[in-house]
Amino acid sequence: MLLTRFTDLSLRVLMYLSKSDPDRVPAVTIAEIATQFDVPHNHLIKVVNRMAKLGWVETTRGRKGGLRIAPHAGELRLGSVVKELEGRDELIDCAGVECALTGNCLLKGVLDKGLAALYAEMDKYTLADVVANRTGTSIIKLHKHWMDTHPTAH
Amino acid sequence: MLLTRFTDLSLRVLMYLSKSDPDRVPAVTIAEIATQFDVPHNHLIKVVNRMAKLGWVETTRGRKGGLRIAPHAGELRLGSVVKELEGRDELIDCAGVECALTGNCLLKGVLDKGLAALYAEMDKYTLADVVANRTGTSIIKLHKHWMDTHPTAH
Repeated sequence: MLLTRFTDLSLRVLMYLSKSDPDRVPAVTIAEIATQFDVPHNHLIKVVNRMAKLGWVETTRGRKGGLRIAPHAGELRLGSVVKELEGRDELIDCAGVECALTGNCLLKGVLDKGLAALYAEMDKYTLADVVANRTGTSIIKLHKHWMDTHPTAH
Repeated sequence: MLLTRFTDLSLRVLMYLSKSDPDRVPAVTIAEIATQFDVPHNHLIKVVNRMAKLGWVETTRGRKGGLRIAPHAGELRLGSVVKELEGRDELIDCAGVECALTGNCLLKGVLDKGLAALYAEMDKYTLADVVANRTGTSIIKLHKHWMDTHPTAH
């Protein structure tokens, strides 16, 4: 019962961008995030495109272009974010499985309630909550390290 | 965030055996469950071995051998069952992933709380609860159909 890699990467992009100065020059790029988190550039392109469509990340083109977090993204509820990114709302793909109990399965109802409880618990927290304190400090250090070690990018 | 195939199959085996007459001759076999649910025999061997070790399923060898549910398995709490079968207690494999935030990540705490809420919700229900009513009727029909269509096995 792991989150998809897509969700995992999305959450890290949201957290990283949340602690970036939106007026930073140069702006954060996909290449930067790929390096910082040691994740594949191609995966991140899909992740960023999706989050741009969802209105959580803003992208600008051109030499000074890049990524920044949308103004109100800090208020995003984490349960809703994960639910949206996972793209399915069930713990077993009953429709895709040949099962003799489909349509008559009380287990499915219990699994659905369990998943709803997970999202409800995570909805108690916002994106801003998880980039506070020591997490926020860590991310700010990553940004600082990047700017210090990429002076030619200025 | 799907349950593993292993957990899925395990739950179906538990449900199927819960509605079998423990004195049925011949006893339920892995081959029978594989046919009833259209799932691979080899996967089921691993599933049944694991559940026998956990004391949830009893196996007997020999010509009259087979599988039956353990006497008190109906009292198993579904959250605990799924937690045991999934074999991990986290939504992101933080230890197996190279992440610049490991050790300083408030998101991990929120994910852990979400997963705990899922298990707590599912622990409100027992195995007996999900093989009651229409689900139980469906499973009993499966058993009856099997016995009717496999007379040579008697």
